Amino acid sequence: MSGYQQLKQEPDGVLTARRKFSPFRIALSTALVAFASNDVVVDNAAPLQKCASNAPLRAEPPAPVNLWAPLAVKEIAEVAEWLRAPERGLNLTSADDATLSDNVVFLIEAYRPRKADALAYLAHPVDVNLPARYARATVHHGGVPEPMIRDYLIGPLPISEKTSMRHLTEIYHRDDIPYNAGGFITQTKVNLLLGDIAPKLAEVTQELFGGVVLGRPNDTLVAGFNAPMSFDGSFRRTWINWRRNVPAPWLHAIAFWQYADISGTDPSQWKILKVVYNHQVYPSFESFIEAFHNGTLKRYPKRPDNADPSWSSRKPPTMQNKQRDLDHLPGPRSVSFAGLRFRVERKLQYISWMGWGMYLGFDRDMGLSLWDLRFRDERIIYELAPQEAMAQYAGNDPMQATTAWLDRFFGMGSATRDMIPGYDCPDEAVYFPATTFTGQATLYRPRAICIFETDTHRPITRHTGYEKDEFGAVKGYVLTVRSISTVGKYFDYIFHLDGTIEVRLSASGYLQGGFWEPEQDGYGAPIQATSMGSLHDHVINYKVDFDIAGLENSVLSTRTDVEEVEQPWFEDDWGSTVRQQKITRTVIENENDALLKYPPNLQGHFSVINQDAKNKWGIPRGYVVHPGYSPVHNTVVGSKRLLNNANWARYNLAFSKRKDTEPTSSSMWNLQLSGKPMVDFHNFFDGENITQADLVAWINVGTHHLPQAEDSPNTRTNVATSSFFLAPLNYFDADVSMESTNAIVLNHPSEPGGSFVFDDFGVKPAHCVPAPVPPFEYVGLTAYGPDGVETPAWETEELRKAAELYHRIKVEF
Amino acid sequence: MSGYQQLKQEPDGVLTARRKFSPFRIALSTALVAFASNDVVVDNAAPLQKCASNAPLRAEPPAPVNLWAPLAVKEIAEVAEWLRAPERGLNLTSADDATLSDNVVFLIEAYRPRKADALAYLAHPVDVNLPARYARATVHHGGVPEPMIRDYLIGPLPISEKTSMRHLTEIYHRDDIPYNAGGFITQTKVNLLLGDIAPKLAEVTQELFGGVVLGRPNDTLVAGFNAPMSFDGSFRRTWINWRRNVPAPWLHAIAFWQYADISGTDPSQWKILKVVYNHQVYPSFESFIEAFHNGTLKRYPKRPDNADPSWSSRKPPTMQNKQRDLDHLPGPRSVSFAGLRFRVERKLQYISWMGWGMYLGFDRDMGLSLWDLRFRDERIIYELAPQEAMAQYAGNDPMQATTAWLDRFFGMGSATRDMIPGYDCPDEAVYFPATTFTGQATLYRPRAICIFETDTHRPITRHTGYEKDEFGAVKGYVLTVRSISTVGKYFDYIFHLDGTIEVRLSASGYLQGGFWEPEQDGYGAPIQATSMGSLHDHVINYKVDFDIAGLENSVLSTRTDVEEVEQPWFEDDWGSTVRQQKITRTVIENENDALLKYPPNLQGHFSVINQDAKNKWGIPRGYVVHPGYSPVHNTVVGSKRLLNNANWARYNLAFSKRKDTEPTSSSMWNLQLSGKPMVDFHNFFDGENITQADLVAWINVGTHHLPQAEDSPNTRTNVATSSFFLAPLNYFDADVSMESTNAIVLNHPSEPGGSFVFDDFGVKPAHCVPAPVPPFEYVGLTAYGPDGVETPAWETEELRKAAELYHRIKVEF
Repeated sequence: MSGYQQLKQEPDGVLTARRKFSPFRIALSTALVAFASNDVVVDNAAPLQKCASNAPLRAEPPAPVNLWAPLAVKEIAEVAEWLRAPERGLNLTSADDATLSDNVVFLIEAYRPRKADALAYLAHPVDVNLPARYARATVHHGGVPEPMIRDYLIGPLPISEKTSMRHLTEIYHRDDIPYNAGGFITQTKVNLLLGDIAPKLAEVTQELFGGVVLGRPNDTLVAGFNAPMSFDGSFRRTWINWRRNVPAPWLHAIAFWQYADISGTDPSQWKILKVVYNHQVYPSFESFIEAFHNGTLKRYPKRPDNADPSWSSRKPPTMQNKQRDLDHLPGPRSVSFAGLRFRVERKLQYISWMGWGMYLGFDRDMGLSLWDLRFRDERIIYELAPQEAMAQYAGNDPMQATTAWLDRFFGMGSATRDMIPGYDCPDEAVYFPATTFTGQATLYRPRAICIFETDTHRPITRHTGYEKDEFGAVKGYVLTVRSISTVGKYFDYIFHLDGTIEVRLSASGYLQGGFWEPEQDGYGAPIQATSMGSLHDHVINYKVDFDIAGLENSVLSTRTDVEEVEQPWFEDDWGSTVRQQKITRTVIENENDALLKYPPNLQGHFSVINQDAKNKWGIPRGYVVHPGYSPVHNTVVGSKRLLNNANWARYNLAFSKRKDTEPTSSSMWNLQLSGKPMVDFHNFFDGENITQADLVAWINVGTHHLPQAEDSPNTRTNVATSSFFLAPLNYFDADVSMESTNAIVLNHPSEPGGSFVFDDFGVKPAHCVPAPVPPFEYVGLTAYGPDGVETPAWETEELRKAAELYHRIKVEF
Repeated sequence: MSGYQQLKQEPDGVLTARRKFSPFRIALSTALVAFASNDVVVDNAAPLQKCASNAPLRAEPPAPVNLWAPLAVKEIAEVAEWLRAPERGLNLTSADDATLSDNVVFLIEAYRPRKADALAYLAHPVDVNLPARYARATVHHGGVPEPMIRDYLIGPLPISEKTSMRHLTEIYHRDDIPYNAGGFITQTKVNLLLGDIAPKLAEVTQELFGGVVLGRPNDTLVAGFNAPMSFDGSFRRTWINWRRNVPAPWLHAIAFWQYADISGTDPSQWKILKVVYNHQVYPSFESFIEAFHNGTLKRYPKRPDNADPSWSSRKPPTMQNKQRDLDHLPGPRSVSFAGLRFRVERKLQYISWMGWGMYLGFDRDMGLSLWDLRFRDERIIYELAPQEAMAQYAGNDPMQATTAWLDRFFGMGSATRDMIPGYDCPDEAVYFPATTFTGQATLYRPRAICIFETDTHRPITRHTGYEKDEFGAVKGYVLTVRSISTVGKYFDYIFHLDGTIEVRLSASGYLQGGFWEPEQDGYGAPIQATSMGSLHDHVINYKVDFDIAGLENSVLSTRTDVEEVEQPWFEDDWGSTVRQQKITRTVIENENDALLKYPPNLQGHFSVINQDAKNKWGIPRGYVVHPGYSPVHNTVVGSKRLLNNANWARYNLAFSKRKDTEPTSSSMWNLQLSGKPMVDFHNFFDGENITQADLVAWINVGTHHLPQAEDSPNTRTNVATSSFFLAPLNYFDADVSMESTNAIVLNHPSEPGGSFVFDDFGVKPAHCVPAPVPPFEYVGLTAYGPDGVETPAWETEELRKAAELYHRIKVEF
C-alpha cells in the first residue's frame, strides 16, 4: 500500500487466519474495521497487521563518544574515593555525618572539554583525538580556619597515576567562593536554628495562627527561608516565613516572619535579628514575646474559617463531581502507526530525526543540554543549554519583597522530575535517564528526558493553486526533546523540518503565595480569603553557541523604519513621494554594543551570520532569533538583591565572543552573591571585536506573572509560556522542508468536477493494530551511595527534603 | 477497563471469531498485538474491539435556530429572483452577460440580527421571539447616469408580501459607495484594457523579457493589478505589473509596469498613463515604444538563464531525490480511540466540547465567524470574527511601493479554500461546508471549516509533590476550529480546558515577489537570481464582542512599574528600602483613551471586566487579552494609500462601545477609498463613556515579513504566525480545568521504592482497532446558478479566475 516497511510483518492473510487461530497471526481484514466509516475502500483480501514496534531504531552518531555525557554512577564513586584518599589532603567527612565545620564534597560531575578539542575530535573521531575526560568537584571546606568553598578540576579520567587535581578558578570573576554562599545540603543543619526558637514559638503560634510547631510529625506549621542570603559573602541571613503544614503550604502563608543570621559554620552563633507580625517589627524574639504578653501587640482580626485546606491540592473538592460532557472518554492520542521516525543511541544519549542530530548532556545546575546540533550534515549549534532561572517577587511583607531566586543554586538538574508517562509526554515517547550527585547520594531518574515526534496539525507550507504543481502541502511534524525541573517548568526543544528550533519554557505548579490583606493590593491578587498570589517576574537565560558554516560568525542587526521617498514614477494622484518601510542592516562590531532588546513593535531582528559564507543568491548565511511567546526581560533593574548576579536578565538577548573561560552566564553561587557574584555576565562584554568570531547568543525567555484566581491551585502552562525561535535566515537557498515526503502535490482534474490528481510521494496513512498503552505505573528514583552502591529506597520524607530544600522545612529538634 | 462506552461494541470474543469468520466480528486478542512491546499486560481473555465510530455525536444547541447562519442556496436564489422582478425597479442584468454599464447584483448574503433581538431570543428561544431574517444585497448600478453602488436590506425572509427593501447606510461613514471602489467581477472586464495595449506590448516583450502576450493560451506573460486604485472614489487607477506565465508567477516578476486609468463604466475611456522600465518613466505607451525603437531606452543587462521556473512550484526539482531518513514512513497521527469528544449539530453549524459551545457563521467578506460562545453555561463572547487583513508592501518599483491590500475587498469568505483532508487538518477532523455568492454563482465548498480535538502533549497544569494529592497533572487537550483563506492563511480558534481561547493566524503560500536588482536592497532579499521577496507588513483585525457576566463591562488597564519603597522591617544589611514591582490598575473611562498598544516589555495587560460581578474573592470577573506570537501593529503610519481606511492597524488593540451600527471595523470598499473610506475605524471613538457598557475589543495580529531565501517557494507557517489569547482573569474562583478527568493524581507509596498510588478518574487509554483513514480524494467546489440550480462543474481556468481575480490576469482579446 505504501513505501514503508512494517516491522514484524505478518505473512499470512485472511484465509490462513480463518483456518487456524494462532497468536502470531492476525485475522482482521480492512473490511471488518472499515464499516463504521462510509469513506473507506473495502479490500477483502488484505489482512490487518499489527503495527510496527514502538521501539525506536538505532541512531548512528557522528562520533562514538558523547563528549558531554555526565559521569556514570561508577565514575562518580571512583572520583569520590580518590578525593577521600589521604594523599589529597582534603580531610573529608561524609555528608551524612558531617557538621557544618567539616569538609564535605558537595558536587562531583563531568567537566566538559574545550571546544577546540571537541571539534578536533568530531572532525576526526578516532581515539587518539579523544579529549581527556575531566571531573569537577566542589568541596565545602567547613573544617578550615577560614571556611570557604573550592572547585577542583580532576583528571584525566578514569582515575590513574596520571590523575591530578587543581583549583578551578578561570571561569569565575572572583577568586574565592565564600562559605556563606554555599549550596544547601540538608534540612538537619537548618534545624539547628529553628530548634532553638521553636519552643518560644510554640507559646504564640496556637493563639495567633491556630497552629503548632513542636518539632513533631503532626506540627501544623512549617517554615521556609528566602534568598538571596548574602550580598557579597560576608554574611548569610534569611527571612524565615511560616505556612500551614498542609498539602501545598506555598498557598497557606500565615504572615509571620523572622530575620535570622545563619552565617558561618557555628550554629551556636546563629540568631534571630527581627520578628515581624501584622506590620509590627521587633528587634528580637524576646521583645516580640513581651509585646505578645503585655497587650501591645496588635493582633490580626479573626481570620475567616479556612479549616479545609484541600482547595489547594490537585484534587480540590469544589472541582469534583462536575465531569464535563464526554470527559469520561480518553482524549485523542498520537500514534506512529508505521513505527517511530526518530532514532536514538541510548548509551550515547544521541538522537536523530529528519536530518537533525544531537547529543544530550546533563548537569546538576541546569539539567538537560544539547550538543553538536547538526541539520542536514552541517553543525548549526555547538551548545544549546539553559543557564539560569530568575524569579523576583514583590510584596508588602518581608518575604516577598526580598525574594529573588536564582534556581541554579538549588540545582535545576538535580531538581529534574521523573516524567508521568502519558501525562507529561505522549504515550509513545521515548525516555532517557539522568544521574545527578547531591552530596548525600547519586540519584538516578529513569524518565528524566523524553523524546517524541508529533504532528502540529498545521502544514509547514501549503498553497492552493491552479497551474502545474502549485497546489499542495507539507505536513508540519516536529520532534520535541523535553525535561521538567523545579515547580513544573517544561524545557522543550522543538525541532522543525525547515531547520527551525523552537526553545519553549512552560511553567506550572504552585505559586509562592503570600498572606492576603488589603495592604497587599498592587502586589498580586487574592486566591482565597487570606491567600494571595504574589507579583513576580521569571526570566530564564539560554546559551546558544552558534556555528554558522563554521566558527567565524557575526551579529547582524536588522531594523525597519519608515522613509518618505521620491521617485520619478509616482503620479499626481497620490503625490510624488511614498511613505514606506525600509530595512537597515548593520553588523554589530563590538560586544559592548551587543546587549540588546527587541526593537519596539518588533521592527527588525537579530541574527548570527557568516559574512564569508553566502547562499546561492549572494546573501550571508545565517540564523535569526525570533521572539516567540512572551518575549520579556526583567522589570526591576538595580534592586540590591539582584544587583550584579543576573545582569543577563536586563536584556532580551546578547551576543558575546565565545570563550572556554565563559562557559555559563551564571553559577550556583550567584544567588547568594548579588553584589559580588562568581559570574558577572557584564564581564563577558569587555570591548572585544565580534565580527567573524566564534559567538554565543545569550537569549532570554520569561513571564511577568501577575497572579489571579485561576493560578489556584496551579499555574496553567498555556498562558505561562515563553519561547524563542532559532530559524534559518538565508542559510539555505530555499525552504528545505520541501524535501519532506509526508506531503502532497495536487493537480486539477482534466475533466471538470473530477477528482484531483495527486502525488503523495508514496506515503500514506498506515492501517494496522497499534500496541496497547502499557498500564500506568510510576516508580520513584533510585539512589546510590558515595560508594556507587544502590541504597535502600528513600522514604517519601527523605525525597521531600531533597526536593524541597529550604522551601518547606519541617522543624525537628 | 475504563469508564467510556465504545460505540458498536462487538458482543463476541475470541471463540466465536474462531468458529466463524464474519465481517461483523473481530478476532484479535490484546495478547496478539501486544507482543511487540515489553511493557504490556497480557490478557488472553479480552477480545480486541473495533474502536468507536469517528462520527461525532450530536450536539444540543441552546436554541434551535442559528441566528447567524448564512443564506442557503435556495434562499439566495429566492432573493435574487425577487430583486429581478420589475417591481423592484433595479433593471438588473445577469453578471455573465453584463457590461460595466449595466446594473448587476454583486452580493446577496444574510444580514445579522440586532444583538438585543438575538439575546432576547437566546434567553427564551421560542418562535415568537425569533428575530426576522434579513438579507443584504449589493448592487453595482453601472446603468444609471451617475454610476454608483448601493447596499440594500431585504426582509423579512422568506420572501412574502411583507418583504421589502431599503438602502443600508447606517453602518457606513459616507452616504455613497463610489462606483470606482466597486468589487471585482470578472477578468473579462479587465481585458478590455489589456486587449487594447497588448498588440503594442507584443512588439517589445519578446526582446526585453523573452516573453509574449498575444491573448492566447500559450502566452508566456501574465498581468496583475495593484491596489488601492482610488483615494476617495473619484478615480480608479492601477499599476499593471507583468510576470512570467509559469506556476507561481508571483515569484517571476519581469520588471515592467504601466499606470492605467480604468475609471468609470466606459472602457473606451481607459488609458495607459505611464510606462516604467528599468527606472525610466514614459508618459505614454507611444513614447515608450518610440524610445524602444530609437535606441534611447536603456536595457537591463542580459538576465541570467532562469529558463526552468519549476523551482517555484511545490515540486521543486532541487528538493527531489533527497528523502530524509525514515521519511518514507507516515508520521504520527492523532486518533480518538474511544470516539470523538466534541459534538456537532451540522445543520445548525453548532459545536460543543468540554463545556464550550458556539454557533458558526460565514460571510463573503471575512469567512468564518463564531457566535454566542459559552463556557460552562455562561456566555463569554457574543461575536468573535476577523474583520480585515492588511498587507502593505515596500520597494524600489512602482508596484510594491504602492501596494496596500485590504483583503476584505476580494472576499476572504469567497476565497476560502477547501481543505486538503489529512494535510490541512488531522485525519479525524470533522468538516463543515460554506456557501458564498460571487455575483456569477453561488459556490458550495464541502470542506470549508474543520473541527478537531488534539492533545497539546503538554499538561495544562502539573506539580510534583510529596504530601497528599500534591502530585499530578491534567492533560492539555484543545479543540481547534479552522478555516483557510487566500494565500494559505490558517484562521485557528483554539479552545482550552480552562476557558482560554487562542486566536491564531498562520500564513503560508507564495510571496508577492518583485524583480531583484541591487537597487532593491533594503526592500527585501533575493530568492533567485532575479526574483526577490518584498518587505511587507501583515496586520489582521479581529472583533471580540465580550459579554463578561452580562453586557455591562469595563476596560481595565493593568500596568507594572518599579517603585522604591521604605518599610520598617528592612534591615541594615540591604538598606531600608526595596526596589520592586508594583501593579497599577486603571479603568479606562472614555473610548478615546482605548486605542492601545501593548506596554513596553509587555509590563501589564488589558482586560474586560464586569465591575459589578465579582468572584468569590471580591475581584471583578474578567477576561484578559494576552499577546501571543508576533504581537505587532503596522509599521507605516500616515502613508496616503492607507491613510484612513485601516486605522485599526495603528494599534495592538482597542475597545469601543458596541453598536449595531458599527458591526465591523472595515468594509469591502475600504481598500479603494484610503482617504475617505466607507468605514473609518477612528469614527467609532467619539468620546463615549465605556464604563459598564457593552464593549467590543478590536484586536490585531500581524507579522513584519522581511523575506528571505527560505520563503521560496512558500512562506512557512511556523515562523509566519501571530496570535493572541483571551483568558479568564479572576473570572472564576480557581482554575476550572481541574475539573478535567483526563488527569491523574499520584500519592507516594507506603513502602519506599514501591509503585505510586494513583487516581486516573477512571479514564484510561482505549485499546481497539481504529478505522482506516479513507483513501485520499479531493474534489473541487460545487457551483449553483442564480436560479439555485447546480451548474456544470467549472473548468480549472474558471476556478482560477474566480480565485485569483486581478492578481493573475491572462490577457484575452
